[in-house]
Amino acid sequence: MPSLSVLGITKQSHRRLTPFSFPSRDFNTYFYTQKLDHFNYRAESQATFQQKYVINSKFWGGANSSAPIFVYLGANAPLDDQIRRIGFMTDNAPQFNALLVYIEHRFYGQSTPFGSSEEAYQNDRTLDYLNLSQTLEDYAEVILDIKKNLSANNSTPVIVIGGSYGGVLATLFRLRYPYIALGALASSAPILYLDGLKPQLQDGYFSIVSKDFREASESCYNTIQQSWSEIDKIASQEDGLSVLSRRFNTCTPLENSSWLKDALKLVYAAAAQYDAPQINQAVNLICTAIDRATNGTDVLDKVIAAMFAFFSKYPGPHEYCDEMHQWAWNWQICTEILIPTGISGTDTMFQAEPFNLTSYKETCKGLYDLRLMPEPFWITSQFGGQDVKLVLGRFGSNIIFSNGLRDPFSAGGVLESLSDSLVALPTAKGSHCLDIYAALPNDPDWLIVQRRSELKIISQWIAQYHMDRAANISYI
Amino acid sequence: MPSLSVLGITKQSHRRLTPFSFPSRDFNTYFYTQKLDHFNYRAESQATFQQKYVINSKFWGGANSSAPIFVYLGANAPLDDQIRRIGFMTDNAPQFNALLVYIEHRFYGQSTPFGSSEEAYQNDRTLDYLNLSQTLEDYAEVILDIKKNLSANNSTPVIVIGGSYGGVLATLFRLRYPYIALGALASSAPILYLDGLKPQLQDGYFSIVSKDFREASESCYNTIQQSWSEIDKIASQEDGLSVLSRRFNTCTPLENSSWLKDALKLVYAAAAQYDAPQINQAVNLICTAIDRATNGTDVLDKVIAAMFAFFSKYPGPHEYCDEMHQWAWNWQICTEILIPTGISGTDTMFQAEPFNLTSYKETCKGLYDLRLMPEPFWITSQFGGQDVKLVLGRFGSNIIFSNGLRDPFSAGGVLESLSDSLVALPTAKGSHCLDIYAALPNDPDWLIVQRRSELKIISQWIAQYHMDRAANISYI
Repeated sequence: MPSLSVLGITKQSHRRLTPFSFPSRDFNTYFYTQKLDHFNYRAESQATFQQKYVINSKFWGGANSSAPIFVYLGANAPLDDQIRRIGFMTDNAPQFNALLVYIEHRFYGQSTPFGSSEEAYQNDRTLDYLNLSQTLEDYAEVILDIKKNLSANNSTPVIVIGGSYGGVLATLFRLRYPYIALGALASSAPILYLDGLKPQLQDGYFSIVSKDFREASESCYNTIQQSWSEIDKIASQEDGLSVLSRRFNTCTPLENSSWLKDALKLVYAAAAQYDAPQINQAVNLICTAIDRATNGTDVLDKVIAAMFAFFSKYPGPHEYCDEMHQWAWNWQICTEILIPTGISGTDTMFQAEPFNLTSYKETCKGLYDLRLMPEPFWITSQFGGQDVKLVLGRFGSNIIFSNGLRDPFSAGGVLESLSDSLVALPTAKGSHCLDIYAALPNDPDWLIVQRRSELKIISQWIAQYHMDRAANISYI
Repeated sequence: MPSLSVLGITKQSHRRLTPFSFPSRDFNTYFYTQKLDHFNYRAESQATFQQKYVINSKFWGGANSSAPIFVYLGANAPLDDQIRRIGFMTDNAPQFNALLVYIEHRFYGQSTPFGSSEEAYQNDRTLDYLNLSQTLEDYAEVILDIKKNLSANNSTPVIVIGGSYGGVLATLFRLRYPYIALGALASSAPILYLDGLKPQLQDGYFSIVSKDFREASESCYNTIQQSWSEIDKIASQEDGLSVLSRRFNTCTPLENSSWLKDALKLVYAAAAQYDAPQINQAVNLICTAIDRATNGTDVLDKVIAAMFAFFSKYPGPHEYCDEMHQWAWNWQICTEILIPTGISGTDTMFQAEPFNLTSYKETCKGLYDLRLMPEPFWITSQFGGQDVKLVLGRFGSNIIFSNGLRDPFSAGGVLESLSDSLVALPTAKGSHCLDIYAALPNDPDWLIVQRRSELKIISQWIAQYHMDRAANISYI
């Protein structure tokens, strides 16, 4: 089921494609006793779990200053991994004298309720507490609690920051809790997928993957395009699957060719998604391997050479695949977060495989014995979605939507400003979440400019906020 | 417990203080199969109940017109009673060619889950499903379903309308579901109570009651002010409670004087709250009776004469008191909706009785054996509240806050515009929800002007919306 796994597995390979920097002595870990269920008063719902959050107060101006709190809203992965990556927080805390807070998402990392992942992920009675409404309310309560503990008064502005799914969370958090977050930086957040099953969105992801490869090398693109039928041809021959298993050096013998094709697709997707210009050029790496493969080798040899090059540099997803977290994420995409990714256009290096809601639901049903099928329109009614752009153009404020157009998820991103305070900052060459990673000495100019724009806008929100408070102090 | 009962009991006396007009043949009643719990996927939460809604399509321009849907969001009472009162809907549907929809609030009227009120109000396991989040999502789902059934396309704009607690719901609905409601008319909505337990709010309600009486007659105000110690004096005497019971003609003998004083307080509050200038002048009625009482009668005789005059015109709350609904409302004010009403100032005709959160909680605990105590800050984190005015001044749009300053609930109302699309329309002489009742031939000019302003603003929202759609049709 490629449409289900794309998001999860690329998320794993994420780890090795970006730089690490976690100056741990400045970071202190805490646990908040969080309610398992915020939305009712029943006794059995008063169960709690320990939610992890991390604070870095090295740069903070203090409770009585006008300095802000930057809150990173954890996404679908253990928090520490994310803290290492989100260099934007530490890079920019000094100039804002900002307190840095990172909050782990419920059901991930150390914030798993019911004592253990095994218990937590057991069935739909336990997984049920893993949903967007609960997650957002978790963040609200942790932030309010931190402000209280630090004696930060109400006036301390909070900026929430998130990337990818976390960017969706940051967007929704600002929209739902404008009283708590003054603004949101939503990096590579595909929030237009909330718009339901719009056909034009469904092919977006793999179109962009294809485009990225075509831009890198036309011959590489052609080779990949031809490779699928080559795999099919061999697979259909007697003993073909053994041949493929041997040539691709799979850990276990292939039972069908779909698994192999899905795995290849995920590698191409991950390469495109995280194709950071300064630190790796994963698409180029693959294409160079394909294009340089010895003359006379066949299409499949070229692809195998590319995989060898890729996995030599980035240990494969399979080594890192945290199945338990994958299980939690699959629950989310089987219940609330439907991100349709299909392939139906012709302008692609993949075989056609249009998104099919029915088979998507069947897959979910098989996974979770779900009594309730995913309802794409539930999230639409609860969190908006219909005509996202039109509605937000006249509602809401203080959100930055940053995207890189080489990121396949930019297919669902807000690429044009919706109003003077819902600002889009796209870059033609950016990849997934690039702007919120740490600045590097060899950052290209366009990335430096994008980050500077973000910082300027955030400064303006904060300045405006303090001016408003000063002017309206009478009723506060 | 005066602070608990004020809201509920005045709500009941409400019925007889306003005109009736329910041209029932244009109104059709439907039931929507509503989920009992919207916020999880557990099998046992998939129980449903029948939620009542009423449609009047007499004036509607049809699914393909640009005509809007006006949706009345039911408050804490049976729906039919409310439909009779909300004349604003039928009065103004013709000029908008509007479809009229009225939705009943869960746990009230015929929209009670679990088969019967007795079952529904049984304990905190059943009452637990009575909360704001569930109620707002109910409305979202009914509206989306109606649009679907009527083949009203996405472009049909929806305006939500509510009064008092229903006005709070309308405000929150626009803030939470801007994708579904283009705008909200929130009449007499005390949303600033969401701001937590701000001291200045706590005395507001009874200060305004006092002011209303003082404006009607200084001597009336003084008489009422003196009456409390007179009651105390008699109650402290041997057999004093029997004397009071006899003189006030109570149905059952008084067990203490607090009950009597609370009942009197509620009559004064109801009179002030619903002091509509064209159809009743309840404050004047009471004060005239007090001031005209025969010379030589004592303070208590005067108050008794006033009660006689009041109950002759308006059958007393006790005759109408729907205890089951009162029970539901008390649940709401014991869990989420804390509207503190105390008396601590000196500028009042009442005895001091400052709001006391501890005793409020104790009362709730006694009523419901609540395992979870009311947390005033829960609603603050979930629905905003801190610095409501400051935050909304830079966030959100398209809400009209209408208030009458003679309405004690205007103490918690938005009386100044927060931005160019969050508009306050206060009137000096208006009472509770007056603007959304039916227009009457003898309406004062200021009321006519207030309603015209509301209609003009709503027209502008709709015009702007259709212009936006026309301009942005490419991405819809």
